[in-house]
Amino acid sequence: AIVSAITDRLSGSGKRLAGKRILITAGPTHEPIDPVRYIANRSSGRQGYAIAGALAHLGAEVTLVSGPVALPTPPGVTRVDVETAQEMANAVATALPADAAVMVAAVADWRVETSDQKIKKTAEGAPRLEFSENPDILAMLAQSPRRPALLIGFAAETERVVEHAAEKRTRKGADWIVANDVSGDVMGGEANSIHLVTGDGIEHWERMPKAQVAEKLAQRIADAL
Amino acid sequence: AIVSAITDRLSGSGKRLAGKRILITAGPTHEPIDPVRYIANRSSGRQGYAIAGALAHLGAEVTLVSGPVALPTPPGVTRVDVETAQEMANAVATALPADAAVMVAAVADWRVETSDQKIKKTAEGAPRLEFSENPDILAMLAQSPRRPALLIGFAAETERVVEHAAEKRTRKGADWIVANDVSGDVMGGEANSIHLVTGDGIEHWERMPKAQVAEKLAQRIADAL
Repeated sequence: AIVSAITDRLSGSGKRLAGKRILITAGPTHEPIDPVRYIANRSSGRQGYAIAGALAHLGAEVTLVSGPVALPTPPGVTRVDVETAQEMANAVATALPADAAVMVAAVADWRVETSDQKIKKTAEGAPRLEFSENPDILAMLAQSPRRPALLIGFAAETERVVEHAAEKRTRKGADWIVANDVSGDVMGGEANSIHLVTGDGIEHWERMPKAQVAEKLAQRIADAL
Repeated sequence: AIVSAITDRLSGSGKRLAGKRILITAGPTHEPIDPVRYIANRSSGRQGYAIAGALAHLGAEVTLVSGPVALPTPPGVTRVDVETAQEMANAVATALPADAAVMVAAVADWRVETSDQKIKKTAEGAPRLEFSENPDILAMLAQSPRRPALLIGFAAETERVVEHAAEKRTRKGADWIVANDVSGDVMGGEANSIHLVTGDGIEHWERMPKAQVAEKLAQRIADAL
């Protein structure tokens, strides 16, 4: 047992997060326009699901609030399915308290003032969509009296990746921002180029598969908690 | 062989459409807003895929032009994957000539003037999306010098289902409109309530599973060709 525990520790597969509650969001949100149309985004949910699985593997009690994705729930993870940003914000608030929160979901900034009936083509031409601002789940968590001790946001950026991420960290009140450079390819691929922006500075991770990003981030979270 | 052929004919599983080329579209289209966001619709593609399979089962040479769906290609069907309405229109034109065309896809009426960069939240508030009209694939086929002899459109309606479908048949220049009453549930379910609007009148089909709608429609197409 001692040898096994040492091996586990050395290999990083020990239950380093046993007893820790971690909240994670993943996937896109869908914002309805009318009964049949919606605005979506290309988040596959794979990075978030991989992180949820890696955290559970380290013994954390993981609640995964997930937008619509076509992925199996990782072993040992409690999953809550939602569709819209508002539903995600509600599910996140319900899942508190947590020792850490990892906000990976690509949440729509805006929702559409929906129509009860399918919008028909009319002689007036193109539709006009009225947008309302969605709740900012990361900022909401940062300001919450039940703020998790470690609050991590994600940022998918196509330009000035680190600059935008550092600015986002300050503006949202997060501890870390995991900045994903998606200028080379769209979301939904198998690997990510990560810059980890913390209060101590910026780490540039070499491009690696999402499973490896997840394992590395889970170990960093275990170090911090 | 004779007994088998008679059995086939009586059971409706004979190769009644052998030698016929049939073009079918299915699924949603995705219209990009920027590199990560898009407008989608709730079409699962299941009804169109079931029809493609039923037509192939009757011996037709089936080309299925498909929007983004999570479905396997039915046996014997040639599948062409597209994302946007414009790509679908191009793929349909390329697939001609055909003896019949069954336009089941839920094609976006509008595309968005896209941004090369991810749209950022700005102090100006909500985004403004500029829309352009997409090609009308059904009307384009109806006016084509290579118009299929039998041209069938679909209509998903939440209100005044038959009235809208009959008006659509005339306006688009289609032979039949298969009107799907989606007032009771959203697209993506397992059954459909169909009204078949032809030049001879209107048939009301009882609510039935999508596989049965597909089989019934395939037999009606075989009757007509």
